[in-house]
Amino acid sequence: MKFICNTKELSAACNNVIRAVSTKVTIPTIEGILIECGSDTLSLTGYDFEFGINTIMSVDVVEPGAIVINAKVLCDIIRKLNNDEVTIETNGSSVSIISGAAQYNISGIDAEDYPELPSVNNGDKVELDQKLMYSMISQTVFAVADNESSKPVYTGLKFEIADDTITMIGVDGYRLAIRKEKINYNGEPLDFVVPKKTIKEITKLFNLEEDKSVNMLISKRHIVFEIENYSIISRLLDGEFIDYTAAIPNVQKTTVLINTGDAIDCIERTLPVIENNQKNPIRCLFDGDQMRVSTVSSLGRVVDYTHANTSGDRVEIGFNSKFMLDALHASDTDEVKIELCGPVSPAVIKPINANNFIFLVLPMRLKNEN
Amino acid sequence: MKFICNTKELSAACNNVIRAVSTKVTIPTIEGILIECGSDTLSLTGYDFEFGINTIMSVDVVEPGAIVINAKVLCDIIRKLNNDEVTIETNGSSVSIISGAAQYNISGIDAEDYPELPSVNNGDKVELDQKLMYSMISQTVFAVADNESSKPVYTGLKFEIADDTITMIGVDGYRLAIRKEKINYNGEPLDFVVPKKTIKEITKLFNLEEDKSVNMLISKRHIVFEIENYSIISRLLDGEFIDYTAAIPNVQKTTVLINTGDAIDCIERTLPVIENNQKNPIRCLFDGDQMRVSTVSSLGRVVDYTHANTSGDRVEIGFNSKFMLDALHASDTDEVKIELCGPVSPAVIKPINANNFIFLVLPMRLKNEN
Repeated sequence: MKFICNTKELSAACNNVIRAVSTKVTIPTIEGILIECGSDTLSLTGYDFEFGINTIMSVDVVEPGAIVINAKVLCDIIRKLNNDEVTIETNGSSVSIISGAAQYNISGIDAEDYPELPSVNNGDKVELDQKLMYSMISQTVFAVADNESSKPVYTGLKFEIADDTITMIGVDGYRLAIRKEKINYNGEPLDFVVPKKTIKEITKLFNLEEDKSVNMLISKRHIVFEIENYSIISRLLDGEFIDYTAAIPNVQKTTVLINTGDAIDCIERTLPVIENNQKNPIRCLFDGDQMRVSTVSSLGRVVDYTHANTSGDRVEIGFNSKFMLDALHASDTDEVKIELCGPVSPAVIKPINANNFIFLVLPMRLKNEN
Repeated sequence: MKFICNTKELSAACNNVIRAVSTKVTIPTIEGILIECGSDTLSLTGYDFEFGINTIMSVDVVEPGAIVINAKVLCDIIRKLNNDEVTIETNGSSVSIISGAAQYNISGIDAEDYPELPSVNNGDKVELDQKLMYSMISQTVFAVADNESSKPVYTGLKFEIADDTITMIGVDGYRLAIRKEKINYNGEPLDFVVPKKTIKEITKLFNLEEDKSVNMLISKRHIVFEIENYSIISRLLDGEFIDYTAAIPNVQKTTVLINTGDAIDCIERTLPVIENNQKNPIRCLFDGDQMRVSTVSSLGRVVDYTHANTSGDRVEIGFNSKFMLDALHASDTDEVKIELCGPVSPAVIKPINANNFIFLVLPMRLKNEN
């Protein structure tokens, strides 16, 4: 194999592909990037058995071939080069990298040993605008469970696509985030759960400064995201997902209209005396034209107030401050509506005159000490 | 105690003073900031028995007094406040902090329990421009030993002040950095070693955008740095320091003139194949108009060249790449002179036509494998 290519383009591609290279498993092949040279293109692949990134770029090919090179060593070398062009050539499993006066010789691994990536050929196709997808992900991924959670399916973001509507749902047992948008889709209803790690990685490939789209190709067990000249393949998560429509309370006894920024500031001012989110709830009293927030821990106590427009029953309710703040930070409207139904039902946070996002936060039990 | 002050000023002061508060020792008093309120001033002190910061600011005092407050809790609270003014009041060991609608109650500690800081009254006085001091420190502190080093005195930066000259010296057994400047000083010759931690902390208080100075007050065991309204006290390090003038070779067999940036780039391009700095030296060959740099490890091998103007003997010498790069990065001239005396004597790096900085880097033994 021998090819010549632009150093900066190769460096950018390597730095994206390396994100799919395993840092946990120490199998030399899996720690490498698969380099495949066709008649006039170069294909770079990283894959950790759950998640893979592939990209194809035009290069000057002298001799086609393939090799696997340790991803970190390759990226480090290419990043440091100061010549515009780089030549990569193999001789058996030995790889030479030449650029300007610099000459490297490193060991490669036979490309035959690289695992085969799953193929998604007859999947369903969905196209989505990158900016819209980014916004939908930002408003839901925060509620997706981290790995320590018990139920594996909740470590992923659920997509539902049907009747010209796409819905994303994140849930971790303590809160729920739902975001809906209109799209052009008239195929069979689709329903799948993408691992949180995949979601975070694809957003890094988004180019939000231009109007670009993402193509999704969905099969039973895998999904491919096509983002410009990158193709990301990921397994999907199996398992029974919560019926989120049933989780949203349909009775409201209290409705609060509040400025999002003021609510965030007021709750954040209680954080200095919170020792442990799980043990020290914030106590929110919604009454008349104020939200009163207080908390107590062995560090001390705090009381703060901010303006809020409460109609219906006066209610005092406890929350995990982090979960309430995450929901408020994810609200992209200046004001939000908080719907409550007593101190033991979840709070519903949504825009004042729309339903495109809905966040649910479970309350925490309050002790009578504050 | 009760006082009212500007929230931002108090926050800035707390965030500086907290840097002297111990994070390793968990004695409640030492984890706190000592707050002392005089007739119209507030004094804030952090001290970990080795290093202390004190600042004094004007405030509206209602009732003088003193208390110790946990530094992290205090800083977190003050940072979050959104009202311009804050009132702090004690009632026994209980502290209330009130700002706008926010009211905090936290526990303080009796100020009597706070340790007494050492006093430096009859010390020698030296004044130095902040920018000059910053530049001198930058060019020497990198060579000061980290804590794992064997000899405690080498974990500090040595100052020598005599005959209108100030010299700073850093050494760690593998390299040496010396920086000299003219100053106005006609007192007794001074000679002291300041811990690296103190040096790093004082530079954070420098204001390099204006022409400000630092006052040093030096006693036998302690030094005080006065930087605007902050006063930093530190113990000095004891012990026999190397006679650095004797360490500089006075014979040169090879003199190399080289562009500093080119030399850095050339050496940095070898880093991707260096597994371990202590085991994989870079091999530098100075001959004619080139510096050839190569290295080999189990990751692979690399050869690179850059232009250099060599006079005298051709020499091949090994270095720890990190130590050579640190010295080149600390060189603030476009070109440097490297003086060599065979492969087992230290390399001397200095400006081409001056002696205001001198860096020594010990060579590493090369094996005959590259």
